[in-house]
Amino acid sequence: MTDNLQLNADGKLKHFLTIEGLSRALLTEILDTAESFVGVSDQQIKKVPLLRGKTIVNLFFENSTRTRTTFELAAKRLSADVLSMSIATSSTSKGESLLDTIRNLESMFVDMFVVRHAISGAAHFIAQHTAPHISVINAGDGQHAHPTQAMLDMFTIRQIKKDFAPLRVAIIGDILHSRVARSQIQALNTLGAKEIRVIAPKTLLPAHVETLGVTVSHDLTEGLQDIDVVMMLRLQKERMTSALLPSESEYFKCFGLTESKLKIAKPDAIVMHPGPINRGVEIESTVADGPQSVILKQVSNGIAVRMAIMSMAMQPQGAF
Amino acid sequence: MTDNLQLNADGKLKHFLTIEGLSRALLTEILDTAESFVGVSDQQIKKVPLLRGKTIVNLFFENSTRTRTTFELAAKRLSADVLSMSIATSSTSKGESLLDTIRNLESMFVDMFVVRHAISGAAHFIAQHTAPHISVINAGDGQHAHPTQAMLDMFTIRQIKKDFAPLRVAIIGDILHSRVARSQIQALNTLGAKEIRVIAPKTLLPAHVETLGVTVSHDLTEGLQDIDVVMMLRLQKERMTSALLPSESEYFKCFGLTESKLKIAKPDAIVMHPGPINRGVEIESTVADGPQSVILKQVSNGIAVRMAIMSMAMQPQGAF
Amino acid sequence: MTDNLQLNADGKLKHFLTIEGLSRALLTEILDTAESFVGVSDQQIKKVPLLRGKTIVNLFFENSTRTRTTFELAAKRLSADVLSMSIATSSTSKGESLLDTIRNLESMFVDMFVVRHAISGAAHFIAQHTAPHISVINAGDGQHAHPTQAMLDMFTIRQIKKDFAPLRVAIIGDILHSRVARSQIQALNTLGAKEIRVIAPKTLLPAHVETLGVTVSHDLTEGLQDIDVVMMLRLQKERMTSALLPSESEYFKCFGLTESKLKIAKPDAIVMHPGPINRGVEIESTVADGPQSVILKQVSNGIAVRMAIMSMAMQPQGAF
Repeated sequence: MTDNLQLNADGKLKHFLTIEGLSRALLTEILDTAESFVGVSDQQIKKVPLLRGKTIVNLFFENSTRTRTTFELAAKRLSADVLSMSIATSSTSKGESLLDTIRNLESMFVDMFVVRHAISGAAHFIAQHTAPHISVINAGDGQHAHPTQAMLDMFTIRQIKKDFAPLRVAIIGDILHSRVARSQIQALNTLGAKEIRVIAPKTLLPAHVETLGVTVSHDLTEGLQDIDVVMMLRLQKERMTSALLPSESEYFKCFGLTESKLKIAKPDAIVMHPGPINRGVEIESTVADGPQSVILKQVSNGIAVRMAIMSMAMQPQGAF
Repeated sequence: MTDNLQLNADGKLKHFLTIEGLSRALLTEILDTAESFVGVSDQQIKKVPLLRGKTIVNLFFENSTRTRTTFELAAKRLSADVLSMSIATSSTSKGESLLDTIRNLESMFVDMFVVRHAISGAAHFIAQHTAPHISVINAGDGQHAHPTQAMLDMFTIRQIKKDFAPLRVAIIGDILHSRVARSQIQALNTLGAKEIRVIAPKTLLPAHVETLGVTVSHDLTEGLQDIDVVMMLRLQKERMTSALLPSESEYFKCFGLTESKLKIAKPDAIVMHPGPINRGVEIESTVADGPQSVILKQVSNGIAVRMAIMSMAMQPQGAF
Repeated sequence: MTDNLQLNADGKLKHFLTIEGLSRALLTEILDTAESFVGVSDQQIKKVPLLRGKTIVNLFFENSTRTRTTFELAAKRLSADVLSMSIATSSTSKGESLLDTIRNLESMFVDMFVVRHAISGAAHFIAQHTAPHISVINAGDGQHAHPTQAMLDMFTIRQIKKDFAPLRVAIIGDILHSRVARSQIQALNTLGAKEIRVIAPKTLLPAHVETLGVTVSHDLTEGLQDIDVVMMLRLQKERMTSALLPSESEYFKCFGLTESKLKIAKPDAIVMHPGPINRGVEIESTVADGPQSVILKQVSNGIAVRMAIMSMAMQPQGAF
């Protein structure tokens, strides 16, 4: 699905639902805008009045520490008013439909929905049905997409590696259930990475995964060779009941990133993880906390990148 | 009960607990004040510094999307600090009494309580017992009153119909359990509507309902004749277990508002509903979303009307 | 444990975890700073821009009305951005460790953690492991310490009694389980009270309680003689299952503060309680609400004192 829905008539960002269908120029504009929010010291984020008087509603149908918090902090740094709604405690318990909830909220003069939902396509659905002046940001929908996570990953990679063209990137682990992996693959392809290599057991790969524009390895030792960027995924323990899946200790033995395994990659390879980490399951603590890890830098970058996406999506409605 | 408690010595609004006992002049002042907050385009609400430095505490003992959210947004538009407390998560779980919770909060230099409670009279009780400088707004108490909802309904009616004097208004559905209906009837009587007609099965009407100043019909087809304003009520499904009550489908057949039924009312009749809607139970979707529906306009107006009530109630304490 | 961890190299406050190890000069500086935030009328708290642009995270692993709310209000009076996190709804449900949660939050450019936790030493642990630019305030950890409560108690005592030197203070009730009592005893000793007398049944006293620098009485009538300040503790009902403990009515008969018992203390004695109160269990309502009670004054003072502690702890990181 090419998402023209995401763009205004003038080609500017309106919604941010998926990386699919967005141009390299637009992704680069997001990264450049995010960079403008980072302070000189790289330890600081500027507070700017770009969204003063705007109201952003966080609609979280699923729990999240990192994502909800960084969106809230990003909105505050943009001087917007933020309303966080945990939908378990709302009128949906009185039997109101999602669409009625949206209709009601948009009648309250809000300007943006940040949506996390367990169902793939939920943010897309809301964007299709909401009022024309409202922007929708996908903060993770089912197993479909997590595009702001992918963009903060791209920001972190560019910050360190400068250029995507020469990079070989490995994405390791539960590709099958991962909305993060889908968005990362699309972003890396659009930004022109040299190779995207997925490394996983067959049971954790979608069918015909090669059609996504990746190479495939089922062996971590083999797969890590020549890699510049190691992107780990969280093992979705909650889906590990299937008889087909290995035990945690077996998984760690085959696909867990250890110090010795990491040595197979390039010496200046960086290690990434979207969090939360299962220490000792998909990654060894000494690697997660080690010198090649940029995991916490990813978290920091989440604020600047979300500021960029929110302020870009809100621009065309500036007059409202 | 005439609520002198609601007024200061100079006749100005102090608490807003019920429509009962308030004058037409005061209700009109609320509507006029609300109008002053609506922007030129009617799609916009002004942000004003009227309550800067004031602290408003949302005390919600019952869930609510619409009401809690509009109060919070209204408070922010008035530039107040808002503290939202869901009382399930508070010290009352340690066995503290409501009054001790209030005493403690008022010691924290707060200026207003917005109270929703399952028990009729809860907001009244708090107003009687709280510190003299604090205002209390009733955001719905048991089956007693929901006066801010009634006022936003009045605002919506006046916006479209201009004058109350010639209006015949139908209130349809579960009058018995509805705090909304009680407050609507009082407001419409005070503002001088020509006729208030309640339409409901006998099992969903309070005893001696005529003494409230209404006419009664038990037949929707008959009752809708000559009606200018159709106010639907939510069927309180959670109270539908009683053997006396009809099934949802029977109820819809007799009292559900359909397109064909609506044709019986005047051609320019408007359709209102306090939300959340049970589609297909008390109202057909094509009516709820149709051209005569002003349901979402009600939601929008909720912000301006609550801004008006909060700022008027706070005025006398301006010096504090 | 002497907590050098709490002080910067220049002896200024960095974290506020326990009263233990802090000097009389520092405690007095906290009280003086708190005083500067109280308005002329004593009914008002100033709003100051001291922490504008700073982000404070409330990390509450246990419920609390009073403490969480006063911290949030105090932070807003200091113009800080506040993020309140109830940890039950966070990623820890996905199995993330406390330390990983902290690491992630500190990567989001936050400046202070206010921590309440059921485990003794939790705030201390976080202070030891968090980034150097972050301050940690203990808002109650297990049965260990509740130092901001103790400081607002000291503030209230000094406000009324002016000088600690001549004071005989009684702390009455469940000393064994009370983090409040531990912190009160340390603060009163540091500030030089003449006598700290704990009054409790043997079953509710820690072993070797005298080593804390207190005198002991097991009889309320005897113990209240010559007392200037009566500090009641909440009976931790949730721990009252033990066969060793008396029933509530027995407890009230022996250790409940009644009007007649209070007459044994000095005529100008004040009555304090950290809340929430169990009326009729540890204190009679007529005493809790009586002329000698300063219980609600304690709540009010909680805001100024927490403002003082937060702003002092944040000072050295001013440049960040």
